[in-house]
Amino acid sequence: MSIEATTTPSTGSHISLSEQEIFAAHVGGKLSVTSKVPLDSLRDLSIAYTPGVAKVSRAIAADPALAGSHTWASRLVVVVSDGTAVLGLGDIGPSASLPVMEGKSALFKAFGGLDSIPLVLATTNVDEIIETLVRLRPSFGAVNLEDISAPRCFELEERLIEALDCPVMHDDQHGTAVVVLAALTNAAKVVGKELSAMRAVISGAGAAGIAVAQILLDAGLGDVVLLDSRGIVHQDRVGLNAIKAGYAARTNRQGLRGGIAEALDGADAVVGVSSSTIPEDALARMNPGAIIFALSNPDPEVMPDVAQRYATVVATGRSDFPNQINNVLAFPGIFRGALDAGARRITPAMKRSAANAIADLAAGSLAPDYIVPSPLDPRVGPAVAAAVAAAV
Amino acid sequence: MSIEATTTPSTGSHISLSEQEIFAAHVGGKLSVTSKVPLDSLRDLSIAYTPGVAKVSRAIAADPALAGSHTWASRLVVVVSDGTAVLGLGDIGPSASLPVMEGKSALFKAFGGLDSIPLVLATTNVDEIIETLVRLRPSFGAVNLEDISAPRCFELEERLIEALDCPVMHDDQHGTAVVVLAALTNAAKVVGKELSAMRAVISGAGAAGIAVAQILLDAGLGDVVLLDSRGIVHQDRVGLNAIKAGYAARTNRQGLRGGIAEALDGADAVVGVSSSTIPEDALARMNPGAIIFALSNPDPEVMPDVAQRYATVVATGRSDFPNQINNVLAFPGIFRGALDAGARRITPAMKRSAANAIADLAAGSLAPDYIVPSPLDPRVGPAVAAAVAAAV
Repeated sequence: MSIEATTTPSTGSHISLSEQEIFAAHVGGKLSVTSKVPLDSLRDLSIAYTPGVAKVSRAIAADPALAGSHTWASRLVVVVSDGTAVLGLGDIGPSASLPVMEGKSALFKAFGGLDSIPLVLATTNVDEIIETLVRLRPSFGAVNLEDISAPRCFELEERLIEALDCPVMHDDQHGTAVVVLAALTNAAKVVGKELSAMRAVISGAGAAGIAVAQILLDAGLGDVVLLDSRGIVHQDRVGLNAIKAGYAARTNRQGLRGGIAEALDGADAVVGVSSSTIPEDALARMNPGAIIFALSNPDPEVMPDVAQRYATVVATGRSDFPNQINNVLAFPGIFRGALDAGARRITPAMKRSAANAIADLAAGSLAPDYIVPSPLDPRVGPAVAAAVAAAV
Repeated sequence: MSIEATTTPSTGSHISLSEQEIFAAHVGGKLSVTSKVPLDSLRDLSIAYTPGVAKVSRAIAADPALAGSHTWASRLVVVVSDGTAVLGLGDIGPSASLPVMEGKSALFKAFGGLDSIPLVLATTNVDEIIETLVRLRPSFGAVNLEDISAPRCFELEERLIEALDCPVMHDDQHGTAVVVLAALTNAAKVVGKELSAMRAVISGAGAAGIAVAQILLDAGLGDVVLLDSRGIVHQDRVGLNAIKAGYAARTNRQGLRGGIAEALDGADAVVGVSSSTIPEDALARMNPGAIIFALSNPDPEVMPDVAQRYATVVATGRSDFPNQINNVLAFPGIFRGALDAGARRITPAMKRSAANAIADLAAGSLAPDYIVPSPLDPRVGPAVAAAVAAAV
């Protein structure tokens, strides 16, 4: 049985994967820990273990800064999840989230040159997650929060940044936001519009949606309209939580009301991060030169072949279509840059710098089906890392 | 500057290590995490990450048993320490303990074929350590407790075994005990004595000393005498904690009193696990055909060239002398065997089986300087694993 990868002649991409192939690749897990030092002789053992290692432990005890240079911890990224919002699959629990986290750790190495391990937690209590990571603090150098449900994820990230003296980032929020900003910057060029003159609709007000709204406002979008499962977020809506109420005041300048159809009427771009679908009749109401980012994984809000009937630029989050707006373009370089620079925080300026670096790499050969570099482009990780480190 | 490796012509072993060489080997830490699956093409990404990985996550959510076969967690050993009793260095804290834990994880891979990661904790509270590992339970498959001070380590191990449905072992206790039993079994053959006719003195009643006492009693030693920093443990001593009081009732049948000199008077074997020194005049009081295991690391209770004046068989814990009674002979195979067999507990029978397997590998060519196989002997890990799995 094959997964739902639609053949789209217009995008030219189709990757047929059998379940058998996918499951076979996951047997025993996807990660391996190896020694960087030889362990082939008694001399090797005497250096890496007893008695030699005691010299290093004694030295760190005397000068704690040496732990940064003589252990792996200071550059180790822990990928932390409680499994409450996994891909588009929802609250499937920590064990079921682990294949995703293993993949993430593998990508950190492949594209950021960073060691990374997954830590999945049998608690969804924010206090307990923070407490657990504080206790583990000497074991790692940075925290990539992953697939943690909103609105808990906002509080968790904010409090964890205060509790830990190392880079902490919820990638579903900020990795997504960074790549969306990069892609939208270049898509605007393709359709010949200025960001400041555009109205973007964000379908989904979860972790990714809120962070995308923030980075687009920071980047000077003309207007942003946020939708959640109850429709457009506006200032008169009752029952908004504090976070959404804050965005109601800063978005939707026209005071739009209604659902996705009303939101898309006359919109220039839509960013889908909702795990729902966007109906074709709503897409038909967008402005000419429309931009559609259907980013939910594994199932986009609208499949690219359909989206292209209504838009000039179409992107998804998937590896098997063009214009992959995938966080892998951002998170390896962001963490690498932050760690290279010894940063304790990942700031909004560092995120915008990362977005610019990603956009710049594709800027020389923009086309409707090339608004961001390929996730496999070896220039991406180092360029993002350098840009982030420079913005510290 | 070289570390304190004494040249001993009689043992023929001398490994000269410079501090520069040791520190250079530790720069950046000793471990690396790599992907077992390729990440070189969009197809690769589609399998290992989005969208393919969602199939595996969905499958695990539907059938949790699949987490055992399709993630790395079920066979991942976490090496857990709070840094309170590191080698012979004492309470140097979690960060300073990390080079030891990295080394341990590297040894798990090299000699047990198991992936392993260090987790060092910024808490020494037993309740909090247990709570932390319970929360992390979906992330790993077994717990190797390491370098945790006595008597906290006894309570911690006991309670953790109850709290977690996976193998848990404090290696400083049981790894040491297993290798000591293996070595003493063979040393007794070298000196032509029966274990049941021997009196063994254990200098040090911490984690290792207590576990060695237990396994030697289980193995039928004639008598065991335990010493702590206040001298011989006996039934009339006041102020013994509950654990030592228990051993006072089961050891020291002659009711010996005093210190190391009185304990060694007429003893057949001494096992040093004390991080102290044993004076020569005390060693001189041992029976003919004496066996001296000076196991403290990095500094043995007595250096081998001195010990050999008073004993037929001398062993240390170090890689740079013969007869290395090092836990690396035991822990990789013990955990491998337990995980291979799907065991939830590591039982006394499994430990004795491991000791027998280690002893058997050297039994064919016993000599005063060959009572245990080399830690580099590639037969050891598989033989111990098979013996342990067979004893489940």
